[in-house]
Amino acid sequence: MNDGLTYRDAGVDLEAARATKARLSELVRRTRTDAVSSDFGSFGGRFRATPGRELVASADGVGTKLKIAFMADRHDTVGIDLVNHCVNDILVEGARPLIFMDYVACGVLNPDTVTSVVAGLADACRENGCALLGGETAEMPDFYAEGEYDLAGFIVGEVAWPALARRELSAGDRLIGLASSGIHTNGYSFVRALFFGRLGLGARDPFPGTGMSVSEVLLRPHRSYLPILAPSLDAGRIRALAHITGGGIPGNLDRVIGPGLDAVVRSDAWRRPHEFEVIARESGADEAELFRTFNMGVGMIAVVREAEAQSVLGQIRETGCDAFECGELVEGDGEVRLEGA
Amino acid sequence: MNDGLTYRDAGVDLEAARATKARLSELVRRTRTDAVSSDFGSFGGRFRATPGRELVASADGVGTKLKIAFMADRHDTVGIDLVNHCVNDILVEGARPLIFMDYVACGVLNPDTVTSVVAGLADACRENGCALLGGETAEMPDFYAEGEYDLAGFIVGEVAWPALARRELSAGDRLIGLASSGIHTNGYSFVRALFFGRLGLGARDPFPGTGMSVSEVLLRPHRSYLPILAPSLDAGRIRALAHITGGGIPGNLDRVIGPGLDAVVRSDAWRRPHEFEVIARESGADEAELFRTFNMGVGMIAVVREAEAQSVLGQIRETGCDAFECGELVEGDGEVRLEGA
Repeated sequence: MNDGLTYRDAGVDLEAARATKARLSELVRRTRTDAVSSDFGSFGGRFRATPGRELVASADGVGTKLKIAFMADRHDTVGIDLVNHCVNDILVEGARPLIFMDYVACGVLNPDTVTSVVAGLADACRENGCALLGGETAEMPDFYAEGEYDLAGFIVGEVAWPALARRELSAGDRLIGLASSGIHTNGYSFVRALFFGRLGLGARDPFPGTGMSVSEVLLRPHRSYLPILAPSLDAGRIRALAHITGGGIPGNLDRVIGPGLDAVVRSDAWRRPHEFEVIARESGADEAELFRTFNMGVGMIAVVREAEAQSVLGQIRETGCDAFECGELVEGDGEVRLEGA
Repeated sequence: MNDGLTYRDAGVDLEAARATKARLSELVRRTRTDAVSSDFGSFGGRFRATPGRELVASADGVGTKLKIAFMADRHDTVGIDLVNHCVNDILVEGARPLIFMDYVACGVLNPDTVTSVVAGLADACRENGCALLGGETAEMPDFYAEGEYDLAGFIVGEVAWPALARRELSAGDRLIGLASSGIHTNGYSFVRALFFGRLGLGARDPFPGTGMSVSEVLLRPHRSYLPILAPSLDAGRIRALAHITGGGIPGNLDRVIGPGLDAVVRSDAWRRPHEFEVIARESGADEAELFRTFNMGVGMIAVVREAEAQSVLGQIRETGCDAFECGELVEGDGEVRLEGA
């Protein structure tokens, strides 16, 4: 008998970790693309880009939307959020994704939970034509509450539409808003304070004015705009994109318009989705605060030439995503002005 | 007056986040290399690889070594650990690093802490010729205890030494052990249970038998083997590398030797560093458990032809890193055998 300290005593179960790794390996294998040149389990995943193409990388997390997943004990959507968020971020730079890597950290590894998370990541990777090249699953005793975890991701893509990163914009260019699929991944600390704090709701309670539960509405995955925008991008009709994440329309559109232009956004140009009406009414927050915190129904904004606005609107709608002209660029000094609210 | 809910009420201070971002931006700028083609603050960082070269990516975390940093309130070393760990992982695949991205998550952002963490990341990136291309700093109320955070990293490199990934090994090849710079980043749950649990020590207490504190010994950064091995790699003298991380020598060397060979490692071929003697004595753990949990003084193992062992040993030692011949490959079936302990 050995009364020495073992790693298992210290809270790390390497055997359970190995069994889970085998299940994850199969999920990862199914995302393999032609770009991948290594096997699962090597120290680093190998891949190839198209020679001469510039690469784009981005890192992100899911944030406190994870808490909703914990409350609802549903873990297959947060991976979709993370992948699609990252895909959208590099799309703005004109890039198509090549590979994705995840970091999942938990206190004690629950194999079913981790497998659900990775299944979500793998599904979203496949839908975006992106290989889930590997990742790290960290078991960190005393870091995370029981049943909780953190999830971060990292994407690398290659520039397929170089004009996007150049952002050659002019006064008179039109802004096309693309409908979000809900709250996406920003504003969840606000959302939690409102629904679970002030309103005292639980995850399984009905969301006010809907036939869905609170968690069903709040967990709706962040949508990928890659398949929605690819036809217009391939046709060379998009001059710039802004992914509407933390900071909302004002805090993201300003990053693409540059110093000589203002963006005028007419916030009455689209019908505000129901969940944002509920958030506005129940929180009492003013419009400016709401627009800095939430996407308010617009997950991506495309800047297009005036003459091409109608054809781009048509191409986007053909993919099943709602889109609307919601403003324009004018001479200015880099401001985003919300009008019409 | 507005009694509406604001993001600040909900625990997220966007202004403090912006101020910190400006400080981080300067640290990041100083790591810029010729490979980088974007500015700080874009949605995704842009970079270029050498045309035609295969790429290698890896993700990792620091693990529970972070807890020692929290106890000692010292945050400038964990970033070095993370970058060097990632650099070593892709070095094993024959890659030199191009870019690194970090993910830092905390409950409430402490600007000084985050700046120290990123300063460590930036220093290590510079020493490895790698650009800190960007990252994500996530403020997640209710996820992390006060003063705590998690830290993960993602690296992309390009293959500069393609022979390494091919791993053409033969019976008779020699194993060269490269000295670790301490415990590196594996085994910290064990270490914490031993020093802070069983032995009841504090981070500032003297480490047994040294003039250093417990935290000084336990926080010694994971070393990068890139500058140490580059001369031998450039000379084409390394057939394969194994980075000795979680799983120790048996759990990592087996990943490179392939199915037709065994690795025989003579564990009396090097002098075991003092901290591992203390861990062995105070924990009572047996040799097999210690070797599965810790690097035991060997942070990297190089596989070389017998005829080149002496010249590789000389080239490594010239860089100031201790190295020793510690075994060889024999006919077998993929096992790692520890002998001589």
